[in-house]
Amino acid sequence: MALEDPSWKIFFEENPMPIGFHENVNLIKEFCQQAAMKKNRVALVTSGGTTVPLEQNTVRFIDNFSAGTRGSSSAEYFLEAGYQVIFLHRSKSLEPYFRHLVGKNIFEMIEVSPDNVAVGKKHQLELGKLAEKYQRHRCDLLMISFSTLSDYLWLLQATAQQMQILGPLALLYLAAAVSDFYIPASQMPCHKIQSSGGPLSLSLQLVPKMLAPLVTLWAPNAFIVSFKLETNETLLETKSNEALLKYHHHVVIGNLLNSRKVHVVLVDSNSPNAEEIRLSSSDLENGIEIEFKIVENLKIRHDQYYADHKTG
Amino acid sequence: MALEDPSWKIFFEENPMPIGFHENVNLIKEFCQQAAMKKNRVALVTSGGTTVPLEQNTVRFIDNFSAGTRGSSSAEYFLEAGYQVIFLHRSKSLEPYFRHLVGKNIFEMIEVSPDNVAVGKKHQLELGKLAEKYQRHRCDLLMISFSTLSDYLWLLQATAQQMQILGPLALLYLAAAVSDFYIPASQMPCHKIQSSGGPLSLSLQLVPKMLAPLVTLWAPNAFIVSFKLETNETLLETKSNEALLKYHHHVVIGNLLNSRKVHVVLVDSNSPNAEEIRLSSSDLENGIEIEFKIVENLKIRHDQYYADHKTG
Repeated sequence: MALEDPSWKIFFEENPMPIGFHENVNLIKEFCQQAAMKKNRVALVTSGGTTVPLEQNTVRFIDNFSAGTRGSSSAEYFLEAGYQVIFLHRSKSLEPYFRHLVGKNIFEMIEVSPDNVAVGKKHQLELGKLAEKYQRHRCDLLMISFSTLSDYLWLLQATAQQMQILGPLALLYLAAAVSDFYIPASQMPCHKIQSSGGPLSLSLQLVPKMLAPLVTLWAPNAFIVSFKLETNETLLETKSNEALLKYHHHVVIGNLLNSRKVHVVLVDSNSPNAEEIRLSSSDLENGIEIEFKIVENLKIRHDQYYADHKTG
Repeated sequence: MALEDPSWKIFFEENPMPIGFHENVNLIKEFCQQAAMKKNRVALVTSGGTTVPLEQNTVRFIDNFSAGTRGSSSAEYFLEAGYQVIFLHRSKSLEPYFRHLVGKNIFEMIEVSPDNVAVGKKHQLELGKLAEKYQRHRCDLLMISFSTLSDYLWLLQATAQQMQILGPLALLYLAAAVSDFYIPASQMPCHKIQSSGGPLSLSLQLVPKMLAPLVTLWAPNAFIVSFKLETNETLLETKSNEALLKYHHHVVIGNLLNSRKVHVVLVDSNSPNAEEIRLSSSDLENGIEIEFKIVENLKIRHDQYYADHKTG
């Protein structure tokens, strides 16, 4: 059993907690306590990629390809499905509601006249709709950000632990693209690597698999959904099944880099067959996002899980 | 002389041009031709970090720490100093004018009522000022974006070549944080590296120094300013001087990772002593940015260069 491997403990001993950690944990604690009192469901949505610094005075780092599309859109749909959401995201990655402004030019939407600054007529509908949605949900949304792998893992552990108070009302939706490899702090050079030294060899260690302690120790009662991103279709279902068998959590969502916006595979520990979600061409025409369907599907599974696990 | 080293040519042979390259080159060409007709100065401002993919179907990449603060603020000051600006920037890094909205919550600035969507009274002044500045300068600003090291180098070469028509009216301000190391396409694995393979060893090659062909072949008449970022103060001035001696361009701006927003050193090929620019505490209180002073200083040097090099 993966828990006997102590490497996850060593990771936390060797990598210091992030700046502002206690303040963040207090925010999370209060958010969970209030939700628990109201018997509200809470989804932890992790989103974006983690960085792995190559130098202690960091100039260079390894990053994972992730804009945060999956996480930020899913967070919106969880909010709309009645969940409160802790959005644990990579700093400057996409955020719920704000993501719709990316690529839009806000200064072209604003009309400046000598006595007034106004939203241009043709942008009022779109901007108003988004602002209204955001304003309606903002009290149910707690935004917490990270940059490095180590920051992320510290915050993940703490959030999962704070969510214990919610029992089976808690759902963990682990959409962040977490690095598999890192350079331990003790092996990092202090200063920027000089290019005059010629070609560069980097030796990266495996990141301990945190799903093992997460499922068993940090969030033993929560409904846990993880993602498996591959680029090779032949490995997808096998890898997703393997992850579920290894960590004993609830759902693995498998997706391919090139088709992840239109096709995913859900593997559930409670059912023998994988379920596919695929956007049809009419879905695409109507602007339906696959995360809407994923969240809708997960909510039903979470309902069942809650019915099976609630006490009293 | 560095030009005899053919490695920069080999780089372009081995790394294909980016998607949309010709469209971008056409935009740049037209922008430069129109500026040349009006005898306007044009600054090429490069900004943000370059990525180095570790896999061909890219999931992981090495990145350079850079939000694009230096480049995006400098671009504003060049515009205000009367330059037209080509802003060659990392996709999603900070942009002139828009950078001021980062960390601001646009949905909190908007007031939604049943019959109107408006800018809140207390945000009108700030938003109006920015929108007005942007709208005044937008025709003098050409935005071109890149992600990878290879995309950046292709676009840098092409832009420099198109700027030749401007002769000494052209200024190149190379503030992008360009990777020193990369993995040649031929040595990249096709699919995502599997973590089941154990620890990962990466072997990175040196990126050819493009300043050599840039100064000599691509932009022989432009006024060229490069940056040198270090984390070790004792290396700063030596490294800046070395760069100037090696490439024979005009100014190197040396800066340290930790003090780069308040202190830089300018080394000029025409003067024996380095010049320091340092923000005073009253500058900081008044919201003066160091890029304002850098651009002011460079404009004087460019004036002199132009006077010495213009023909006819």
